[in-house]
Amino acid sequence: MKWLKGETTEILRALNKDVRMIQKDNQQIEEQVRQIIQQVIQNGDQALKVYSKKFDQVELQNLSLSQETITLGYQRVEKEVIAALEAAKENIISYHQKQKQYDFMDTEKSGVLRGQLVLPLARVGVYVPGGTAAYPSSVLMNVLPAKIAGVKEIIMVTPPSKEGVPDVILAAAKIAGVDKIFQIGGAQSIAALAYGTETIPKVDKIVGPGNIYVATAKKQVFGTVGIDMIAGPSEIGIIADETANPIYIAADLLSQAEHDTLARAILVTNSVALAEQVEIEMDRQLETLPRKEIAEQSIKNNGLIIVASTISAMFTIMNEIAPEHLEVQLEDPISYLHEIKNAGSIFLGEYASEPVGDYFSGTNHVLPTSGTAKFYSPLSVYDFVKYSQVTYYTKDALAEAKEAIALLARKEGLEAHARAVECRFE
Amino acid sequence: MKWLKGETTEILRALNKDVRMIQKDNQQIEEQVRQIIQQVIQNGDQALKVYSKKFDQVELQNLSLSQETITLGYQRVEKEVIAALEAAKENIISYHQKQKQYDFMDTEKSGVLRGQLVLPLARVGVYVPGGTAAYPSSVLMNVLPAKIAGVKEIIMVTPPSKEGVPDVILAAAKIAGVDKIFQIGGAQSIAALAYGTETIPKVDKIVGPGNIYVATAKKQVFGTVGIDMIAGPSEIGIIADETANPIYIAADLLSQAEHDTLARAILVTNSVALAEQVEIEMDRQLETLPRKEIAEQSIKNNGLIIVASTISAMFTIMNEIAPEHLEVQLEDPISYLHEIKNAGSIFLGEYASEPVGDYFSGTNHVLPTSGTAKFYSPLSVYDFVKYSQVTYYTKDALAEAKEAIALLARKEGLEAHARAVECRFE
Repeated sequence: MKWLKGETTEILRALNKDVRMIQKDNQQIEEQVRQIIQQVIQNGDQALKVYSKKFDQVELQNLSLSQETITLGYQRVEKEVIAALEAAKENIISYHQKQKQYDFMDTEKSGVLRGQLVLPLARVGVYVPGGTAAYPSSVLMNVLPAKIAGVKEIIMVTPPSKEGVPDVILAAAKIAGVDKIFQIGGAQSIAALAYGTETIPKVDKIVGPGNIYVATAKKQVFGTVGIDMIAGPSEIGIIADETANPIYIAADLLSQAEHDTLARAILVTNSVALAEQVEIEMDRQLETLPRKEIAEQSIKNNGLIIVASTISAMFTIMNEIAPEHLEVQLEDPISYLHEIKNAGSIFLGEYASEPVGDYFSGTNHVLPTSGTAKFYSPLSVYDFVKYSQVTYYTKDALAEAKEAIALLARKEGLEAHARAVECRFE
Repeated sequence: MKWLKGETTEILRALNKDVRMIQKDNQQIEEQVRQIIQQVIQNGDQALKVYSKKFDQVELQNLSLSQETITLGYQRVEKEVIAALEAAKENIISYHQKQKQYDFMDTEKSGVLRGQLVLPLARVGVYVPGGTAAYPSSVLMNVLPAKIAGVKEIIMVTPPSKEGVPDVILAAAKIAGVDKIFQIGGAQSIAALAYGTETIPKVDKIVGPGNIYVATAKKQVFGTVGIDMIAGPSEIGIIADETANPIYIAADLLSQAEHDTLARAILVTNSVALAEQVEIEMDRQLETLPRKEIAEQSIKNNGLIIVASTISAMFTIMNEIAPEHLEVQLEDPISYLHEIKNAGSIFLGEYASEPVGDYFSGTNHVLPTSGTAKFYSPLSVYDFVKYSQVTYYTKDALAEAKEAIALLARKEGLEAHARAVECRFE
């Protein structure tokens, strides 16, 4: 693993060179995606079938999966897995329910009512990747907050394959309460959700992870529909001192590293001894991992050990990294919460291992990556509502406001704005 | 004005053809903006000065405006305008304070703590257009919610001009509490805010309206920093029946139409008589408007009168339009709130004229346009915070969760995830 040591300012400078990922647009993919979207707008379902044959080698009869297919898939999944998914669902619901917001009303001024309505989106599309990246846990994480928000219809799209959609994905969709599933993937599925086809209804927002084609398509349809953030590779940052257990830290770093060779595992510590033990432990644990090659590559390319002199410096550095997942393995970890400015999901103490959040605790595992925790948030109920402002004025209240409104409108050269108010008093 | 009459389904079909704006990407502008951004990344302030000379015909010595310049500008503004801006500020603050959210904590399960922190963004950039599109009211609307959210530093950028930044913009910036102002506009200013230069600090999020170059640049830096929505032309939708006053309706429609030839004013009514009177009134009022040509063009190209048979159909149609501003000019308007599914800002009754919201009531005037009220919201305090999840587990609590976590992790082929939890019990 690469080591960084020195003054905090030097480390921050090095990080800014090293960590900051400038998003490079791939113009060739952009152009290809643009064409796919245009084709779907023009030819609808027909275009979807052509692309499924071309990209997925599947000749689709039906885009839509029947309820029977979904139920049969669900029934083929082991009882224990269903029970674990149900338990996770319960925790996800109980956590996300706390994000429910209420309409408010303000009647501070005589004759004036102001308020805010919280309204659910009507229809949401969830992208679920195919193949080995098909994660049932992600289906729950994307769908359940939308259900809690009150979204009426949730459409899932997932790439077709000769083997069919994996049973455990069908089971997760059924457990989460997906309304319809369409076997269609890639940029073409994003286009279908954004513009609608004969079979696939237009949605208001598209969420869910996908490959570069899916991400590019989401970016291109952004504005026509809402989208969630564009996810980058997974990351973990661990803050630990000499009291921490190197075995646990090594295991947690590896649990992120196994995701992807681009994944990033970072330890920030004030203890060189701990850091050295963690490295030894990682080598030992790596040996028997089925995804050893991926994890090894990830650690080699992107792994980082940062040694800082004080606990305060450790947090300053970690706030600049703004990790997707942050573990705080210090004594009395709760007392450090106020030091944290930027992190998607925070895990406190030696038993809050990051995979607890991936699968079970109920917090969302769709999180801001690549330092975007500085301005983005975990997926939540807030992503599936929108707000409407409400204003009511009596004639008396308007009379009192009239002059200020007309003055400002005229100052901006917008005479019709001034007259709209004044004509009420002529 | 164009009229649409008929069955609701027919009207909806016609609207979907007519109203739906498919965003066309302008590849030439995109390429130009891409180059500007690259230049600013590579050459920083120097690039900014080159572009200011090229696009704004201004040779800048200093990018930054001194506090003295700002104060002098403020002092040159008429006292009445300052007072009106201060009154608007007070209302904006009192409305947006209701959007303040609090951290929550959940201790439902033994040995488990879950929570959510609400944290402000650290630094925000506000774009303020130059020339005739420089609106002091927009400065208040973009800056004050960020202040309430707790954003520490607010940077304003605005195009340079030989005459200097308008006094009233400087006054609004001072009143709103902008921390620094830089004279730099266009795509180059967005690049500077997104990546930072020697003089301009990198921000976490960029908000504020701008021309096509600014909007394209915002879209391109989206992901590197957060952005607000991409605003389209202004819109008003009015729902009115035969009890409404055609003079007020005509005035309110014109107040949107005067913004821009692309602005859209729509009346939905069940009364042909009212609609006819509104048309006559608009012709009459247009005659003396300083921005007659713009308003006339807007009404001619995009104005729409829709006649529906029932009040319920009127709302169904308006929800499909999802207007930026919605006026409900019916008797007992509050009783129809539950019919509204999609609208940025709702104005109830004959005295809540839309300009009240533009300048005075305190609700935000930065609103979703072009039908995006189906999934976007008014600018708010929520746009300037982000959430962090918090999880704490005791050993006992993890022991209880262990099997489910390991089972799901292995089902997804992620062995290191399972072991991260299990190693705590070896």
